[in-house]
Amino acid sequence: MNVVLLPGDGVGPEVMAEARKALDALELGIAWTDVPWGSAWWAEHGTMMPADAIDVLRGHDAILMGAVGDPAVPDDEALWGLILKIRQELDLWVNVRPARLLEGIPGPLAGRAPHDVDMVFVRENSEGEYAGVGGRVHRGFGHDVAIESSVFTRRGCERVIRYAFGMASARKGVLVNATKSNASRFGFPFWDEIVAEVGAEFPGVVVDRMLVDALSARLIRDPGSVDVVVASNLFGDILTDIAAALQGGMGMAASANLSPGGGVPALFEPVHGSAPDIAGRGIANPVGAIWSAALMLEQLGAGEGSRRLMDALETVCRRGPRTRDVGGTATTAEVGDAVVAALAA
Amino acid sequence: MNVVLLPGDGVGPEVMAEARKALDALELGIAWTDVPWGSAWWAEHGTMMPADAIDVLRGHDAILMGAVGDPAVPDDEALWGLILKIRQELDLWVNVRPARLLEGIPGPLAGRAPHDVDMVFVRENSEGEYAGVGGRVHRGFGHDVAIESSVFTRRGCERVIRYAFGMASARKGVLVNATKSNASRFGFPFWDEIVAEVGAEFPGVVVDRMLVDALSARLIRDPGSVDVVVASNLFGDILTDIAAALQGGMGMAASANLSPGGGVPALFEPVHGSAPDIAGRGIANPVGAIWSAALMLEQLGAGEGSRRLMDALETVCRRGPRTRDVGGTATTAEVGDAVVAALAA
Ligand SMILES: CC(C)[C@H](C(=O)O)[C@@H](O)C(=O)O
Ligand SMILES: CC(C)[C@H](C(=O)O)[C@@H](O)C(=O)O
Repeated sequence: MNVVLLPGDGVGPEVMAEARKALDALELGIAWTDVPWGSAWWAEHGTMMPADAIDVLRGHDAILMGAVGDPAVPDDEALWGLILKIRQELDLWVNVRPARLLEGIPGPLAGRAPHDVDMVFVRENSEGEYAGVGGRVHRGFGHDVAIESSVFTRRGCERVIRYAFGMASARKGVLVNATKSNASRFGFPFWDEIVAEVGAEFPGVVVDRMLVDALSARLIRDPGSVDVVVASNLFGDILTDIAAALQGGMGMAASANLSPGGGVPALFEPVHGSAPDIAGRGIANPVGAIWSAALMLEQLGAGEGSRRLMDALETVCRRGPRTRDVGGTATTAEVGDAVVAALAA
Repeated sequence: MNVVLLPGDGVGPEVMAEARKALDALELGIAWTDVPWGSAWWAEHGTMMPADAIDVLRGHDAILMGAVGDPAVPDDEALWGLILKIRQELDLWVNVRPARLLEGIPGPLAGRAPHDVDMVFVRENSEGEYAGVGGRVHRGFGHDVAIESSVFTRRGCERVIRYAFGMASARKGVLVNATKSNASRFGFPFWDEIVAEVGAEFPGVVVDRMLVDALSARLIRDPGSVDVVVASNLFGDILTDIAAALQGGMGMAASANLSPGGGVPALFEPVHGSAPDIAGRGIANPVGAIWSAALMLEQLGAGEGSRRLMDALETVCRRGPRTRDVGGTATTAEVGDAVVAALAA
C-alpha cells in the first residue's frame, strides 16, 4: 500500500503523526510518501502544491491528509489550491462521513444515549455549490453585483444519489434526502427528480425528504431518527459539522473522499480544520484523524486492520486517555500512544 | 393600527387565533383585515394570493402571518407564490430572529443555563441564495444541467450588514459574520468586503468571522458565546432553525420581516411551518406566534404593549401550561388563554 501523507497546516501534522503511528503499529507494510504541501509550501513557492501534485497523487493507492488553512494564506488560495483542487481534479465525487458518538465521549445533548447518534452522511463532493462558477460586475463602482452559481449535473447528482441509496439499503432502508427545494427553483428540484428516478432502482428504500433547515433542527432534537443522509456539497458540509458537534466535537469526526470505480487514490481526512488557535501545543484531538485512517484501511481492502484500529480507538475513548476537548487532560501523543498500546493488547 | 391577519395553512390558523386573542386582550385598538390566502385559495383560484395582494398589503401597518405550505400544493408555488413573493415584492430586506431559551422550557443541551441561549439573527431577506435566478438545459435528454445562482448586490448586502452592526453595537459589541468564504469564490468574498467597509463606521463593534459550518457546530457546543449574527438568506434560514431547536423547538421561534424606513408594512411570523402532520389537532405551540405578535407591537410603536405581552408569555412558559412539544400536555388554546389570563393579572 503506497500512501501519500499530507499533514498540511496547523494541527494537521500533530494529528497525522498519531494516525501514522497507529497505522505503522498494525504492520501492514504501508509505504509512505511524505509531501510538505500546504501553507509553508505556499510561503516559499506561492502555490499550495507543486504543479505536478495531482500526477504525484495519482501514482499512489490513497492519500491521508491532516488539514489545510493558515491565517497568512488567503482562504481562496489555501482551499482552492489544495483540498478543493484535489477533490475536483481527482474527481473524488463522494464524501462519506460517519457520525457516531463513541462510548466515553461526552455528547452535548441532554439525556441522549450514545447510540442515538449513529449516522452516515453521503455528501456530493465535486460540484453543486462548490462549482466555483460565478463572477462580479461593477467592482469598485459602488453598485457591484456578485454572482455565485451552483451547478448540478445529471451525472454528478446521479452517481452520489445512487451511492447513497446503496448505503441506505445496506443499513436501515431509509434515506434522508436533504435539500432546500422550497426556496431553490432550479438546483434542488432537479436533484429531487434524480432522487425519484434513482429511487425506482431501490424499491426497498424509503426516501425521507427533508429541508436542510428542518433537518438541522431535527439532528439536534432527535438524532436517533436519522440514519443515512444524502446531501449536496454545501449542505453536506454544514450537516456534518452539526453531526460532529453531536459526536463530541470537531476533533472526533472522520471522512473519506472517494471516487468509487474511478481508479484514483481516495483521500481520507478528519473533518476538523487546521485550528491555528491551538496548533503547536500538542493538545489537538487525534481521534478523527485515526478514525479516518481506519476508513482508509477499509477502502484499501485491509478490513481486518481497519476493524482492529477502530476497536483500539473505541477502547481508548471508553477508558481514556482523552484530550481536553472531550473532557480529558491528555496530549495528542498520549492518545495516539494509548491507541498503539490497545492494538498490542 | 391596521393589521392584516394571514393565518395561512395547516397549524397557521390555530396559532394565529391565539396571537389575535392575546393582542385583542391588550385593547390597543387593532383593526384586523382577515385574508384567506394560502393553499385553500390556491385550490380554488390556482394562485396563493389574488393578483392585487401586494397592493392590499401595502395599505396596512403590518402583516401577521401563520404559515404556508400544504402537501397538495407544489412548494415552488406555495412559497414563491406567497411568503417569498411578499418578502421580495415589499422588499422586506431584513429578517430579525431573536433566539432565547425562555425559563421553564426544556432546552436540548446538557447542563446549559437558559441564558446561555440568547441570540439575535439578522438574516438577509431579499436576495442571495433566494434570488430565484437560474435555469436548466438538456432537460429530459439524460445530460441535463441545472444552475441556481446566488445574487449578492452591494445595496442588498450593505443595508442588512449595516442594520446588523447597529444591532451589535446596541447589544454586546460583537457581530458574528456567518459566511462560507473559503469555498465560495465570488458571493461571500464580496459580502466580506462589505462587512469590512461598513465595519469602519462602527469602530466599537468587533467582527467575529465564522464559516457557517463551524458556526453551526459552535451554536450547539457553546451557544452562550454567540450574541448577534449576520447571515445571508440561506445561512440565516439554516442557522435560525438550529437556534430554534436550542430554544426548545420550532414552535418557540419568532421572526420579523422588516424594511426599515421603507414605508411598507412589516411582516411577522413564527419560524415554524404549517406542520401538516399535527394540523387540526389543536396541539401546536402558539408561543412563536405570540412572540411574533409582540415583535409586531414593538415595531408599531406600542412598546409597552409589547413588553406586557412578552411578560405574560414568559410567565406562562415558566409556570405552564405548555404544549407537548415543550414537555406539557396543554392545547394550543389553553396556552393562549393562559397568556390572556396572565395579561389580566
Ligand atoms: C475547508 C473547507 C473548504 C471544507 C469544505 O467546506 O468542504 C471543510 O469544511 C470540510 O468540510 O471538508
Ligand atoms: C418556507 C421557507 C421558504 C422559509 C425560508 O426558507 O425562508 C422558512 O423556512 C423560513 O425560515 O422562513
